[in-house]
Amino acid sequence: MAGNTFGTIFKLTSFGESHGPSLGGIIDGLPSGIKLDVSKIQNALDRRKPGASFSGTDNPCVTERKEDDRIQILSGLFNGYTTGTSLAFEIKNTNQHSSDYSEMALKMRPGHADFTYLEKYGFRDYRGGGRSSGRETCVRVAAGEIAREVIESILGASYSCTAYTKSAAGITAESIDFSEIEKNPLRCPDKNAAKKMQEKIEQLRAEGNSAGGIIECVVNGLPSGLGEPVFDKLDALLAHAVLSVGAVKGIEFGSGFNAAFSTGKENNDPMHAENGKPFFDSNNAGGILGGISNGNTLIFRAAIKPVPSIFTEQKTVEAKMDADSPQKNLVYENSTLKIKGRHDVCLAPRIVPVIEAMTSLVIADLLLLEKVNKL
Amino acid sequence: MAGNTFGTIFKLTSFGESHGPSLGGIIDGLPSGIKLDVSKIQNALDRRKPGASFSGTDNPCVTERKEDDRIQILSGLFNGYTTGTSLAFEIKNTNQHSSDYSEMALKMRPGHADFTYLEKYGFRDYRGGGRSSGRETCVRVAAGEIAREVIESILGASYSCTAYTKSAAGITAESIDFSEIEKNPLRCPDKNAAKKMQEKIEQLRAEGNSAGGIIECVVNGLPSGLGEPVFDKLDALLAHAVLSVGAVKGIEFGSGFNAAFSTGKENNDPMHAENGKPFFDSNNAGGILGGISNGNTLIFRAAIKPVPSIFTEQKTVEAKMDADSPQKNLVYENSTLKIKGRHDVCLAPRIVPVIEAMTSLVIADLLLLEKVNKL
Amino acid sequence: MAGNTFGTIFKLTSFGESHGPSLGGIIDGLPSGIKLDVSKIQNALDRRKPGASFSGTDNPCVTERKEDDRIQILSGLFNGYTTGTSLAFEIKNTNQHSSDYSEMALKMRPGHADFTYLEKYGFRDYRGGGRSSGRETCVRVAAGEIAREVIESILGASYSCTAYTKSAAGITAESIDFSEIEKNPLRCPDKNAAKKMQEKIEQLRAEGNSAGGIIECVVNGLPSGLGEPVFDKLDALLAHAVLSVGAVKGIEFGSGFNAAFSTGKENNDPMHAENGKPFFDSNNAGGILGGISNGNTLIFRAAIKPVPSIFTEQKTVEAKMDADSPQKNLVYENSTLKIKGRHDVCLAPRIVPVIEAMTSLVIADLLLLEKVNKL
Amino acid sequence: MAGNTFGTIFKLTSFGESHGPSLGGIIDGLPSGIKLDVSKIQNALDRRKPGASFSGTDNPCVTERKEDDRIQILSGLFNGYTTGTSLAFEIKNTNQHSSDYSEMALKMRPGHADFTYLEKYGFRDYRGGGRSSGRETCVRVAAGEIAREVIESILGASYSCTAYTKSAAGITAESIDFSEIEKNPLRCPDKNAAKKMQEKIEQLRAEGNSAGGIIECVVNGLPSGLGEPVFDKLDALLAHAVLSVGAVKGIEFGSGFNAAFSTGKENNDPMHAENGKPFFDSNNAGGILGGISNGNTLIFRAAIKPVPSIFTEQKTVEAKMDADSPQKNLVYENSTLKIKGRHDVCLAPRIVPVIEAMTSLVIADLLLLEKVNKL
Repeated sequence: MAGNTFGTIFKLTSFGESHGPSLGGIIDGLPSGIKLDVSKIQNALDRRKPGASFSGTDNPCVTERKEDDRIQILSGLFNGYTTGTSLAFEIKNTNQHSSDYSEMALKMRPGHADFTYLEKYGFRDYRGGGRSSGRETCVRVAAGEIAREVIESILGASYSCTAYTKSAAGITAESIDFSEIEKNPLRCPDKNAAKKMQEKIEQLRAEGNSAGGIIECVVNGLPSGLGEPVFDKLDALLAHAVLSVGAVKGIEFGSGFNAAFSTGKENNDPMHAENGKPFFDSNNAGGILGGISNGNTLIFRAAIKPVPSIFTEQKTVEAKMDADSPQKNLVYENSTLKIKGRHDVCLAPRIVPVIEAMTSLVIADLLLLEKVNKL
Repeated sequence: MAGNTFGTIFKLTSFGESHGPSLGGIIDGLPSGIKLDVSKIQNALDRRKPGASFSGTDNPCVTERKEDDRIQILSGLFNGYTTGTSLAFEIKNTNQHSSDYSEMALKMRPGHADFTYLEKYGFRDYRGGGRSSGRETCVRVAAGEIAREVIESILGASYSCTAYTKSAAGITAESIDFSEIEKNPLRCPDKNAAKKMQEKIEQLRAEGNSAGGIIECVVNGLPSGLGEPVFDKLDALLAHAVLSVGAVKGIEFGSGFNAAFSTGKENNDPMHAENGKPFFDSNNAGGILGGISNGNTLIFRAAIKPVPSIFTEQKTVEAKMDADSPQKNLVYENSTLKIKGRHDVCLAPRIVPVIEAMTSLVIADLLLLEKVNKL
Repeated sequence: MAGNTFGTIFKLTSFGESHGPSLGGIIDGLPSGIKLDVSKIQNALDRRKPGASFSGTDNPCVTERKEDDRIQILSGLFNGYTTGTSLAFEIKNTNQHSSDYSEMALKMRPGHADFTYLEKYGFRDYRGGGRSSGRETCVRVAAGEIAREVIESILGASYSCTAYTKSAAGITAESIDFSEIEKNPLRCPDKNAAKKMQEKIEQLRAEGNSAGGIIECVVNGLPSGLGEPVFDKLDALLAHAVLSVGAVKGIEFGSGFNAAFSTGKENNDPMHAENGKPFFDSNNAGGILGGISNGNTLIFRAAIKPVPSIFTEQKTVEAKMDADSPQKNLVYENSTLKIKGRHDVCLAPRIVPVIEAMTSLVIADLLLLEKVNKL
Repeated sequence: MAGNTFGTIFKLTSFGESHGPSLGGIIDGLPSGIKLDVSKIQNALDRRKPGASFSGTDNPCVTERKEDDRIQILSGLFNGYTTGTSLAFEIKNTNQHSSDYSEMALKMRPGHADFTYLEKYGFRDYRGGGRSSGRETCVRVAAGEIAREVIESILGASYSCTAYTKSAAGITAESIDFSEIEKNPLRCPDKNAAKKMQEKIEQLRAEGNSAGGIIECVVNGLPSGLGEPVFDKLDALLAHAVLSVGAVKGIEFGSGFNAAFSTGKENNDPMHAENGKPFFDSNNAGGILGGISNGNTLIFRAAIKPVPSIFTEQKTVEAKMDADSPQKNLVYENSTLKIKGRHDVCLAPRIVPVIEAMTSLVIADLLLLEKVNKL
């Protein structure tokens, strides 16, 4: 109800703040008898960690704050198999420094959720962003990896879901080589573009500035038939999933916003048959027709806004209230804020595994729903 | 479950095919004691009708098929007030010609949902697109108007939700004058751009082609605090709502995809205070921070693909099956299709009221949820 | 949300008041390709009608008000098969006399929902009970018949669900002969008991009084494994379903309230095996262990309160308000009420098909859920 | 979906097995700004523990297994107030002896869920009952205490919810003195009956037998208007909640099953007015009319079956499978089982706080829903 549950059959309920004891979730609707390798979930979490994507050298995109994200499964798993009952997992917070956040208790960081949380709840856990911190995405990543196991149990190895940084800091990949993605800190599939992105990001960092980017996600091996018209169309659910990730400001499928400037003759994907099987001659639809997967490659892009934490003095407002007393009447006055500490410069590479995870959550759910669409 | 329900408190469940007896819906969660003027709902439906937006002259965008969309309230209303019980409404189909659709029973129209419905359900009501027909949006529009009444009961007259055609057929509005919107068949807020759009659309129609467009939606008078982190953020719910509308291929909020190419210094919206009240100096966020409305104008854009029904022979596949027997094994063979009849050339103006309706559904739901977020 | 939807996969959303234009519902989550015989649904509705259970002679239990409950399917059915999209149906009200209800607008009938609806909504459709009228059960019966078709598509003809009047007016059936049930107006499986019940009910009618009863429901052919721990256990869902029917004041499974006075030695059901298959030696559990069906006969009983509409002057309160203006502050004063017209004397036989319908709704839903419990 | 979530606005999602690392839950929909005293939740958990209800002497009803149920709040609470985000809590398992359960891996304990879990999931965590263990009720009790805080925030101190053992081992309380309840290990409000119950239970224990009972629950201070027709009536939701508790085999409201043998004249509750306020002269309805609270005392009873773990050799079946490999084809053969260890003899006193907790969950949820029923 209050927004912490996602999914219909495969349902994730999430909890946790950046400076509480732990974050985690409960997955309900996980079928029984699925072999779960906890080390795979741990690997997925490690991939999300700051600095994880680029070992051996400095990663220009992200902070160096150490987060030791160890997952513990609390229920629903016995002898390595899911039992069919609710599976809970927990990731303890081990590296918080709450004392750093005193100024933030009352000053609203521009571009952050500080102001809206305070307005909504009349009160907020200001330590490190609390519930609005990007740290909550570790729960999505862990659950997404479990969803991927469910998908592979149903579809086999033919299925793949790959996201990557298509654009960052104004530079766009010109080639797509999946094997390059994990070789550079940008998670960019174009080696040369990655290098230019790095340089530009270093420059922005030096200027106390930050950068946005575009993530593209490509899913192969998806059967036709996924998506539930009229409201829970595949694209509608993916849009919901992806826009629920912090810093995402837009999504487009297939030819997307370009379709708006196209014509029917250009944008329609003709079909042909081979050996009785149907194929599409192009993929402007991005693998979705009428909200249902059409068996073609699913492809979409998400716009990521620049990191709002910049090292420049910004105009903002300061709340006048007792920070420790909830829901007092708020008054604001003018103020300025200069954010300290270390922060990411471009979020795209860190959000890449989160986009994959959200995609897996949607697809696992729809694959299970398909089992009841026909008898 | 199967995707025909939208909302959490204010819940719309929709039914109906383009050639069945009727379409309609049930709204559950409508508070009691709200004065509902059925003629307003009728007006909203009339506005969605083909040709409705431009009386007196030919409307180049849309078909001339007559649809007489009369709404009847079946329950939940007594003496003009909502009773608090489920409100059902029905819009009868009066003008179908099922005999026109025999060829479509087996040939898959490119860019339409024919193929995916057949694949998903093993069987489909092929008459006029069945459930996948845009005709289902009349249910959204009727429910959206009721949602608007709920919103106005809570927020008063300060609330407004206005969508319009920002781009069509490659031409983009350069000025925004709300008073122009209903004066031209494009629903474009720029009179001159509207004229150019019309000309371009006439030309595309003559070529048997079609056009896409962009709809922009602007909501004023929204309080801060709407949206339920972490999964049911305001932007996530709006993205879900808007992408569930046929022909929409993307959505972006505020600076949207441009944010991806921006920097933190440019994209952050600084704040200031006046008389204790908070204000934003710019609106790159589009009125949403951390998934919660920030009291600024809510603004988003949706990409509309070109009408897939074009009057040109297209390559496609034809299903080999008995069309009247469900879920037989399907085989496809090569075919061609030339669509007949009259069809819209650009959907944007007709989708404008649908986008407003979906926005109202989301906002009414979140306003009701706000009533239980604080005691 | 507001209580008019039942089910998780197989979801019924219901609407309608006794004196509005119609009642009906939308079933979402109905698998595609199920052959639906509308005449069977009509038969189920006919069986629920007043006087329907006993043709040729006077039925002492029920009123003689003529209701012509004709079902019309509005969507989701094409060429006799379900399409997988939402199926809506409507039953028009044809025989209301709203003018009869003027006194009831303000006087609260004891034992009825008049008072609580007025208190809850501040306003109510008082004509014939409005939404609280037993007439809404026609929607349950129609949907239940569709659920039964789904169940039979999955389980085949081995499945049966049979309810009957176990007790009425203080008399209890001593034998259970299913073939007797539809032969007497009490729907009692014991011919002799049925006769005594009839006599007692005639006597109560003559005295302007009414009677309660007990309905027993027996389900055979159910596989083991149905029910979703920990909150959606089979018995929990059935209890929810059955207690949602007006006039039901209790439910018990298997040995039920007698189990409270029993011991473990008496109440445990020992098991044995035959040819590798498990069997129970007794059925005190009523076919449910740990909230999951155990493959044994499912058996439960529901307590039905006496009809509250009695033809005797009763003490009550009268609301002081403008009946046509919603949600004015209410004040009550002392009054008396003598109900006129014809009313049922004992509801049990009319509720029998409703209990079967609700049972079918629960079982169809759980059978579909079973398809995703294991891969 | 899979049954581990309860509630609509105030939603509890539960996890945990008796021998996993921990049990716990996530509450979503908790309003912000509610002061939560964790020691109160701890007290509620302590009251549920074995032996807790009777200090100083032996408690004849329950086992002496030590469970140290320490609750830890993981999220959603800041400086003692709820933040409005999801609140997670965990109760670690500290005292399990998994080695005791080897025989139970394959032998089905009569009256337990061993058989149905194995049939449903093809595989089960057999240690101490796994998910089907009564140990999961600690999650209900913790969440129920939080629900009670929400209720008291809304209703103030006038609200009370009190359950007690009405009958146990065949003996029924003849007087109701709330102050006696926590003074005897039976949680019986009649001191003399409690003594007789104890003696009878000691005798049954000596015989290796066990006893059932009846719990009555009384709620005062409830406003009229709670309950959502037609499917989520107050009694329907309470029946769902209470039947979801293990060992409960029936529920009845007000006059309950006695109403079945009553007449309308006897069973109707007449009303009168005093100073403009409405009152009922009797309470056969148990505080509910048409599924909505009527402002009168809410009263219901639940039937508790005898503890199935008895110390007598019982006939049962043994599964032939590899206990550690999921979902192999099962075959059963005849066997016998004699349960060892210490077990409760009568569950009623331990279930008393669970019934109160489930009642609080329903009422908190409906009170929040009331906030959106009228504007």
